[in-house]
Amino acid sequence: MKSPVAIYDTTLRDGTQGEGFQLSVADKLAITELLDDLGATHVEGGWPGSNPRDEAYFAKAVRLPLSRARVVAFGATRRAGMRCDADTSIQALLSAGTPSVTIFGKAWRFQASRALGISPEENLELIDDTVRYLKARVDEVIFDAEHFFDGYRDNPAYALAALQAAAQAGADALVLCDTNGGTLTHEVSMAVAQVASTTSRPIGIHAHNDAELAVANSIAAVLAGASMVQGTINGYGERCGNANLVSVIPALSLKLGIECIPRDKLALLTRIAHAVDELTNQVPRNNQPYVGRSAFAHKGGVHVNAVMKDSRTYEHVDPQAVGNSRRVLVSDLSGKASVLLKAREHGIDLAPDDPMAAEVLRRVKELESEGYEFEGAEASFRLLISQAIGQRQRYFKLVRLNVSTHLADDSSTEAMQGGTATCELSLSVGGVEADAIARGNGPVHAMDRALRQVVDRFYPALASMRLVDYKVRALSSGDGTAAFIRVLVQSTDGKEVWGTVGVSTNVIAATWRAMVDAIEYKLMKDGMPSMNDATHPGKERVSERA
Amino acid sequence: MKSPVAIYDTTLRDGTQGEGFQLSVADKLAITELLDDLGATHVEGGWPGSNPRDEAYFAKAVRLPLSRARVVAFGATRRAGMRCDADTSIQALLSAGTPSVTIFGKAWRFQASRALGISPEENLELIDDTVRYLKARVDEVIFDAEHFFDGYRDNPAYALAALQAAAQAGADALVLCDTNGGTLTHEVSMAVAQVASTTSRPIGIHAHNDAELAVANSIAAVLAGASMVQGTINGYGERCGNANLVSVIPALSLKLGIECIPRDKLALLTRIAHAVDELTNQVPRNNQPYVGRSAFAHKGGVHVNAVMKDSRTYEHVDPQAVGNSRRVLVSDLSGKASVLLKAREHGIDLAPDDPMAAEVLRRVKELESEGYEFEGAEASFRLLISQAIGQRQRYFKLVRLNVSTHLADDSSTEAMQGGTATCELSLSVGGVEADAIARGNGPVHAMDRALRQVVDRFYPALASMRLVDYKVRALSSGDGTAAFIRVLVQSTDGKEVWGTVGVSTNVIAATWRAMVDAIEYKLMKDGMPSMNDATHPGKERVSERA
Repeated sequence: MKSPVAIYDTTLRDGTQGEGFQLSVADKLAITELLDDLGATHVEGGWPGSNPRDEAYFAKAVRLPLSRARVVAFGATRRAGMRCDADTSIQALLSAGTPSVTIFGKAWRFQASRALGISPEENLELIDDTVRYLKARVDEVIFDAEHFFDGYRDNPAYALAALQAAAQAGADALVLCDTNGGTLTHEVSMAVAQVASTTSRPIGIHAHNDAELAVANSIAAVLAGASMVQGTINGYGERCGNANLVSVIPALSLKLGIECIPRDKLALLTRIAHAVDELTNQVPRNNQPYVGRSAFAHKGGVHVNAVMKDSRTYEHVDPQAVGNSRRVLVSDLSGKASVLLKAREHGIDLAPDDPMAAEVLRRVKELESEGYEFEGAEASFRLLISQAIGQRQRYFKLVRLNVSTHLADDSSTEAMQGGTATCELSLSVGGVEADAIARGNGPVHAMDRALRQVVDRFYPALASMRLVDYKVRALSSGDGTAAFIRVLVQSTDGKEVWGTVGVSTNVIAATWRAMVDAIEYKLMKDGMPSMNDATHPGKERVSERA
Repeated sequence: MKSPVAIYDTTLRDGTQGEGFQLSVADKLAITELLDDLGATHVEGGWPGSNPRDEAYFAKAVRLPLSRARVVAFGATRRAGMRCDADTSIQALLSAGTPSVTIFGKAWRFQASRALGISPEENLELIDDTVRYLKARVDEVIFDAEHFFDGYRDNPAYALAALQAAAQAGADALVLCDTNGGTLTHEVSMAVAQVASTTSRPIGIHAHNDAELAVANSIAAVLAGASMVQGTINGYGERCGNANLVSVIPALSLKLGIECIPRDKLALLTRIAHAVDELTNQVPRNNQPYVGRSAFAHKGGVHVNAVMKDSRTYEHVDPQAVGNSRRVLVSDLSGKASVLLKAREHGIDLAPDDPMAAEVLRRVKELESEGYEFEGAEASFRLLISQAIGQRQRYFKLVRLNVSTHLADDSSTEAMQGGTATCELSLSVGGVEADAIARGNGPVHAMDRALRQVVDRFYPALASMRLVDYKVRALSSGDGTAAFIRVLVQSTDGKEVWGTVGVSTNVIAATWRAMVDAIEYKLMKDGMPSMNDATHPGKERVSERA
């Protein structure tokens, strides 16, 4: 039996090198917690020297109550001709206060001279000195040998010497990086086996996907002796991305029987892969291995019949093992099990033959066909279940909403101010019609203010609640008509963060739905009785202006 | 030197098993010609027995003047208990009139009994009989051994017996199919080497991507003795897709020096990969290896500097070899070097000490600090450079814009319609004040329609332009004020796709900026003179309603 493999995630650092992939500090913290849930051993959070955002992240991340994952700060070997204690980048690494630090250094002789402008010998000194300095000050020091495979091809002795320098200085792991992502799988196997024969230190692999081989190369490295895999969720990263941990993990776990994440966490894979897509506003790839919507979708009639007889005929693993589910594209037979599972997560137990379960399934399918997506909107899903089982309360009712936005005078584009927006809103709450007019610096802001003006009057518990994130995506429509728009809203009351979703061709309508769900979820979870259900003394009218 | 490898494309057959991947007969014929241009040896066109569309395709495809590719008809072994000349599916294969036929048969003992309900011996007879019958009637017969690797794992002797039956009946190639896509790379290597030691017939590989290993498995099979690779353009296909030929071809050609497509065709790869996406209405994957927009895009400042010194530092192959090109991304990680390089990509040469260069950099940093992001918005960046160097033309000027959205009556949330939106717009174009009022199913739609109504009147070249994608992201603001909102718009004129960006606290204002940039970029790239610069005969007023 092969020894366990450490799962080192770098979504927050190398992942953010990908085009169009940006993360706020809040996103990074949320992803850190998801990775810990999944059972990653290391979460590389950023490069403390490089920008203020990463520093803000580390200040908070080191205080997260993680169960398994270590937060890792990343940086380069010290500058040439400078002592570690005078190098601000090295000091920034220490200031991050993480239990683990990764430093990268050159393992390609050509690169030492070309990129750093120093002699090969001086490069080895930088490695030795930096690793030694850090190892005396933090618990774990990981050495990333940049361009290892190119360096090994060019000058094997030098590439191995770089590893040896790090090992002798106390590095806890030697990570072989295929920085350019162009190394073929059989070359990775041979090089890793060679390294394994020269060191007793744990070996890691850091593969890039430029030749569409990152997953294969990571697996090949493990088979040749590596015991750490660095990669990202969904393979995000610079150029063509990093090794996709979402594909590496089940191959190691299910196909090779190698321990990496705890076995009972594997079924979280699909949910976490999608949650990272949602948080980073990336479009999930339907055909993504293991976790994509199409990964276990059967279209051909031959295949469908055969799968019904025996799933082994067209499924390489059990979809439930990775938290995904089988879909049959011609006849709609899928999903019930996962809906039941989700309902149970929300504390609602439904038997498979309960008519309520069928109703929940019907509603989910209907909404999904309209473009709803509940991966990032668990609160909306919770409300949907309540509704399907007849327990949803309505706390207020829309009478009318008007939002106007006015822009003028862009004599130069950048001088144009954002314009103004006004929202006029009437709601009916417990038989009372209540109005508000609010201004905002945009229609969403005006609408949020008007809505809160009205509902906070009736439900004072809402005072603690605020919107923390707002995301919009146009859903492609093949037929050239106006696209559907999906809005995801994240809200918090200081204790919990919850996501809600709205879909419409109209961005204002979609936003309205997501905002209403956010408020109704808060009231529901606090056990607030609806004023619509109470007998109200009489009809009155309340107005307010702001 | 390894012998040449045949490139067998099945985009038109296995590719169309992918979810959301449909092709008309005209699409199929166009793709056939593209594949012939690229230098594929085989184009599997469809399954003549299965649907009328495939028959219509073959009737035309066999008359196409192809230079290298053979059109291939695909089908199954004959039905059990029926002679080939009485089997309508076998006769449909012959009626297709192709020089080449591929038939698939079972190579997994369990599958013969489970899916076909026949004995293992009878299955071998079906293979023998069908291959023999077809080989007497068409030039080339290729045998696809379905589930070969699963069968080989389960019962190697039987899997090899299936191949032997086909070989003895005259099959020109024995193709080992990883039908479920779950086989690991080292298992493929071992099995192919074993087959190669038992037959002198050419061996093929048909890999699926369910474990994200299809490209690696195809390359491993070639290294172990296979001389035909079956796959699809961009890896389209059932579930997680087939082996991506767009990644297999350059690995064989550039990295292993194995002849597959003619060497001078390799530079067509990017264009053809994108053309297939266009024909099939698939969104191109930016991070696709070799041909994606981001495949040679450099973001980090360290990387940009190193690539400027020597491209080998962060590029595994020369982008031009596959018809792609290097891009430098402008992001908050970048410095002057990448701004200059970016300007050069746009045909504007600035010396590092040119005050214009400093002005561009100052402007980029200023806008980035406001939340602008130019990675997905090259067209906005191009306009920014023009502006910084005093060459930007203004084609129209906003006088005023009002957008109103109305929602009502959500007695149940899901019954609420999307509401309506109205946009009133006044622009000044060349001294003329022009108005429009447009309705839409949402504010963005209404605004797009109003804007286009006005500008298309003055600049008819815009008729070919349309919006293809619209993305919105709220940028988190730590201080609790209303969030900044970033809008990214993608537009096309059928020849080029370009991205533009707008940022504001107001989603309408941000959208307006991105839309205006999109139009101005189109007019600028077409060399359209601004009507604002022309002397206009006199002030007039133009109005229109829609």
